Amino acid sequence: MNKLAVIAFGGNALLRGDQKGTIEEQESNALIACKNLSKLVNKNYNLVVTHGNGPQVGNILLANTAGNTVYGVPDMPLDIAVAYSQGFIAYIIEQQLRNVLMEQGMNRDIISIITQVLVNKDDPAFGTPTKPVGPYYKKEDAERIMAETKAIFKEDARGHGWRKVVASPTPLMIFNRQSIEKIAREGHIVIAVGGGGIPCFYIEQNKLKGIDAVIDKDLASSLLASEIGADEFYILTDVPKVCINFNTPQEKTIDSMTIAQAKQYLVEGQFGEGSMAPKVRAAVNFVEKSGKDTIITESTLLGAENGGTRITKE
Amino acid sequence: MNKLAVIAFGGNALLRGDQKGTIEEQESNALIACKNLSKLVNKNYNLVVTHGNGPQVGNILLANTAGNTVYGVPDMPLDIAVAYSQGFIAYIIEQQLRNVLMEQGMNRDIISIITQVLVNKDDPAFGTPTKPVGPYYKKEDAERIMAETKAIFKEDARGHGWRKVVASPTPLMIFNRQSIEKIAREGHIVIAVGGGGIPCFYIEQNKLKGIDAVIDKDLASSLLASEIGADEFYILTDVPKVCINFNTPQEKTIDSMTIAQAKQYLVEGQFGEGSMAPKVRAAVNFVEKSGKDTIITESTLLGAENGGTRITKE
Repeated sequence: MNKLAVIAFGGNALLRGDQKGTIEEQESNALIACKNLSKLVNKNYNLVVTHGNGPQVGNILLANTAGNTVYGVPDMPLDIAVAYSQGFIAYIIEQQLRNVLMEQGMNRDIISIITQVLVNKDDPAFGTPTKPVGPYYKKEDAERIMAETKAIFKEDARGHGWRKVVASPTPLMIFNRQSIEKIAREGHIVIAVGGGGIPCFYIEQNKLKGIDAVIDKDLASSLLASEIGADEFYILTDVPKVCINFNTPQEKTIDSMTIAQAKQYLVEGQFGEGSMAPKVRAAVNFVEKSGKDTIITESTLLGAENGGTRITKE
Repeated sequence: MNKLAVIAFGGNALLRGDQKGTIEEQESNALIACKNLSKLVNKNYNLVVTHGNGPQVGNILLANTAGNTVYGVPDMPLDIAVAYSQGFIAYIIEQQLRNVLMEQGMNRDIISIITQVLVNKDDPAFGTPTKPVGPYYKKEDAERIMAETKAIFKEDARGHGWRKVVASPTPLMIFNRQSIEKIAREGHIVIAVGGGGIPCFYIEQNKLKGIDAVIDKDLASSLLASEIGADEFYILTDVPKVCINFNTPQEKTIDSMTIAQAKQYLVEGQFGEGSMAPKVRAAVNFVEKSGKDTIITESTLLGAENGGTRITKE
């Protein structure tokens, strides 16, 4: 039976920090990512591809705000912006991956599924929103919006202005997880859980509603990977391996670590909170639930022997 | 074996002409549409739901233009705007339909699939673009953009200004049609081909690319319905039945017509070009290819005996 792997691309796989985000840039980045991904297709893996959406959803929120100001287009909440970004990014990846596979004479359907993810409205994260989204505002505008709505704004540490902050609640369940697994195990490549999924909660029994929040895409991907019984979980980033003692003379790259070691490093604060720490936590979650390995690496090392940092149970 | 039906909702099923398009409005419209749709779920139909995106993509293009002007967000071409709208509208329908089915104690997965549709770059429609999209411009701005780009602008007949016009090419093939059929026949409800699909063409062998065009959603839905061997094809609009001699003393609603009669009425110009004529043409296409019936009606009559206008082979 073919192995089932979940591959989590970062939002920067399509839009690097030094780019504006034109379609040409994003298509060309996606093409590179998909060429790397095709190495696993060539090894007959069954695949579910997930992806971030940070830079893209930022642009969507800016456009929404401007559209409201200039043309009176109704404001869209964050769940809708995530839905926009899922359609957009999945389309770009699907198209580039199809082109790569056609060029290599491989015939696999690529099925992009809009994905909702359940969260709990009593998640403590809603009490302390931390994730900045959307445009920068002047202090007086931020204060006015805070007074008019329930939104919370915080001042940017680099002095760019004030930004709305939203909660990043824990993902509890991926909708359509059985169908995602079935379609992937039939040999089709599934693209799902874009941007960590569209966050929804039960506002009452039998009634789901979207909510202004951002789910960490590595945590949501980790949850999906364990829910569908994936054999391997890849978290892609922009370095080949995880480091400890980063930026010190004792800096050391890690080829392999057990979840016990990974947890110890997390306690020691070895990994950056905005970058590597959530990836290591997502990795630990998957290994703990499934007993299978997580690999943190860059996309060029997909399918390479001993590429990346492997997180194992023991 | 359960019947397989394709149901094509208009973009106005979610956003009526007299509304601005807030999320509350669109969710509430979708809830009504989904309650009607659940009548077919109750009759154990297998379902593929398609939908328009005219009003929504209009808002997306306005926001994009404003985002570019105000914040320098890169301009997005039309294929990306359609991808945005597919994610957005599918999410709204999926969520409301899930709520309706949960309330009724029904358990069906609802799978929203981002859908690309193949067109031919030599389609004669590209020679005479007719479909207005995006914001209105002043004459001098429209002329400047026309001089700078390959875009074509035309003056709005009602004097609102100048608007970009794009081609509406014939849909040739729905990507992932076999998977869409398989998932639907397994009893899951599939949402697909939003806004007529994301238009793509072969820029060279083995290389697909998006194109600035809008595919008629009824024609694309009709093509999908015949490709997946649907037993019935419903085109939903805002009137219960098709009329001939519309707005005259001889006005008559049609309960049933053969494709020969429908073609004769089309030749006579009985149906409005911007409204009912393309629906009747899409209906004729499906009946001609499949031998099965198309029903044109409003969503309140879904599942009703003898509701709507039935188009039959003979």
